[in-house]
Amino acid sequence: MIPGHRYAERLDRLAGLLAERGVDALLVGVGPDLEYLTGYRAMPLERLTMLVVGAGDRPLLVVPRLERAAAEAELRTEVAIATWDETDDPYAVVLERIPTGAVALAVSDRLWASHLLRLQSARPEARWSRASLVLHALRMVKDADEIELLRRAAHAADRVVAHISAGRLIGRTEADVAREVRERLLAEGHQEAHFAIVASGPNSASPHHEASDRVIEAGEPIVLDIGGTLEGYGSDITRTLWVTGGDPSLGPDDEFRRLFELVREAQAEAASAARPGVPAERVDEIARRIIEAGGHGEHFIHRLGHGIGLEGHEEPYLVAGNHEPLQSGHAFSIEPGIYLEGRFGARIEDIVVCTADGPIVLNEAPRDLYVVDG
Amino acid sequence: MIPGHRYAERLDRLAGLLAERGVDALLVGVGPDLEYLTGYRAMPLERLTMLVVGAGDRPLLVVPRLERAAAEAELRTEVAIATWDETDDPYAVVLERIPTGAVALAVSDRLWASHLLRLQSARPEARWSRASLVLHALRMVKDADEIELLRRAAHAADRVVAHISAGRLIGRTEADVAREVRERLLAEGHQEAHFAIVASGPNSASPHHEASDRVIEAGEPIVLDIGGTLEGYGSDITRTLWVTGGDPSLGPDDEFRRLFELVREAQAEAASAARPGVPAERVDEIARRIIEAGGHGEHFIHRLGHGIGLEGHEEPYLVAGNHEPLQSGHAFSIEPGIYLEGRFGARIEDIVVCTADGPIVLNEAPRDLYVVDG
Repeated sequence: MIPGHRYAERLDRLAGLLAERGVDALLVGVGPDLEYLTGYRAMPLERLTMLVVGAGDRPLLVVPRLERAAAEAELRTEVAIATWDETDDPYAVVLERIPTGAVALAVSDRLWASHLLRLQSARPEARWSRASLVLHALRMVKDADEIELLRRAAHAADRVVAHISAGRLIGRTEADVAREVRERLLAEGHQEAHFAIVASGPNSASPHHEASDRVIEAGEPIVLDIGGTLEGYGSDITRTLWVTGGDPSLGPDDEFRRLFELVREAQAEAASAARPGVPAERVDEIARRIIEAGGHGEHFIHRLGHGIGLEGHEEPYLVAGNHEPLQSGHAFSIEPGIYLEGRFGARIEDIVVCTADGPIVLNEAPRDLYVVDG
Repeated sequence: MIPGHRYAERLDRLAGLLAERGVDALLVGVGPDLEYLTGYRAMPLERLTMLVVGAGDRPLLVVPRLERAAAEAELRTEVAIATWDETDDPYAVVLERIPTGAVALAVSDRLWASHLLRLQSARPEARWSRASLVLHALRMVKDADEIELLRRAAHAADRVVAHISAGRLIGRTEADVAREVRERLLAEGHQEAHFAIVASGPNSASPHHEASDRVIEAGEPIVLDIGGTLEGYGSDITRTLWVTGGDPSLGPDDEFRRLFELVREAQAEAASAARPGVPAERVDEIARRIIEAGGHGEHFIHRLGHGIGLEGHEEPYLVAGNHEPLQSGHAFSIEPGIYLEGRFGARIEDIVVCTADGPIVLNEAPRDLYVVDG
């Protein structure tokens, strides 16, 4: 659990950043930014809940009267609270705290458009920007408590991979295996099991395949990409399996093995390059060059990775065009893949933390091709 | 399952409405509007997925290349598809389909602010509005297939209420009972169990109480408010229990019984008044007057109800100020409650469909006070 003093520190640092960047007020709706700043994980409902930072002496949380008790129970730091009743205008309650001279306003990235449009029409003179332009500088750099939660989430997911790869697979549908993955993630302490990609046979060539009614057969690969949240922090791991049904003649052929080795080399090289000061896109490029040199550049059809924390995908993104240098405390996936449409694919993914002492790979599950009886 | 032809009809009617209201194009991000129009239930990720309706001959779905296969597998109607690659600007891909003369643009209510802000900065001359101003006229009126799904969801939730109220409660924590509620909702065919309010003793006075570690005792009420989604459509039911531990002397006293009867009368009267042409706020008022006359007006601290469909809360809202007349096909909760802070509370909630032949109450669980051994 994140200690309470962290939240006060985050709010303090945010206030400094807002002043530095000339943002008059930051309006944070329900979602990961609100949880990061206050610990309050509110339900995403249509009634407006909004934290106002930067206008006034201390942050103000505007909540529906109905949610006040829940908010007070979950808040991990001291903020002022204002409530609104069912027939009040909640946008007015928010905006009355913001001086009319305050025109540089930022909103949390995940705020619903319906809320932003109403705020905009009530303050036509304001200039609106994304909170992430300020807030992600904070959120990207994980503190020791956050890294510990990411590590626990990673290890829980590792154990699920071990269970699934050692269990029966042949004759089951992808959807049935996905159901087991979700149950095991919850049993391992996850609060939510957000995704369970079980992509067998030709489906392994679709990076975001939805687990289907396809029945798994001997002699084919399975890309297993699973994750969820543990105390709010995400897990995300991919391993590639090959099921033989116990028949050695149904093992992977040389073509698949070569393709897999290319993915493994790209993944390992990229992970070891993730050091402070290295531009995010450079890590992507390292993996991509290896796969290109192996003749599969056109089959690596997605970015190398994404940041992870309170969101499953967040900054920093390891993608061409992201010149931002990595910093100590950045946490992200490294997940190259090769996909031959209609035939098969392979991917390996770990969560990696960039530190001054070099990259720390949080996942500990073996990164080999899992050739299993299934 | 919603038949495929419904989606084409919805898109046709939408095109007509857009022309009628002078909206040049509607931009629909991931979420219930997209699912309503196309059947595609996309993951809410940071990569832009957007349906463009109203510009061009037929709707265009812009998806990350990575999601194309999943989108094609889930789409229930024919739309054009354009993909963008990891280093493309997806906002440009969307906006290049919209003539620069098209200035009246609407966006789905749940679109992330980060997406809207980027669209706005790329089209500074446009006037932006909420999709709901057009789309909710369609979404509010449920067709027979939608009502059937709402009915199935309601009956599944009814069965969970029956199980929970007949089972052991005393000595368990609220959180443990909530866990059982979620498991039973899934076992009854729900895909997601979104909420399980188990509010015991004084917690019953908090309408949106989060199930806690409080241990349930004999001689107190429990407000049970549970729901989720079944094939995308929501369930939402509340019943009030009183656990006695088998000891008649620990039953509800006269004060609680009177309070409960007031809630029951308000709920029944409001439900029977929900007919076409009656303003939404009038139904709220009917319940409120009954509770006021019983001396508890100040303790009914929330609106009477909310629409339900692909969203757990959607239009029409039964709340003072909503003058919109109900129409045949509107589906909504009717859920009055009385809350005496620090002491106890009671609520009854059903999902009701307004029809020309009178209101249909989808939930069939008894609406009495459940006096149970627990």
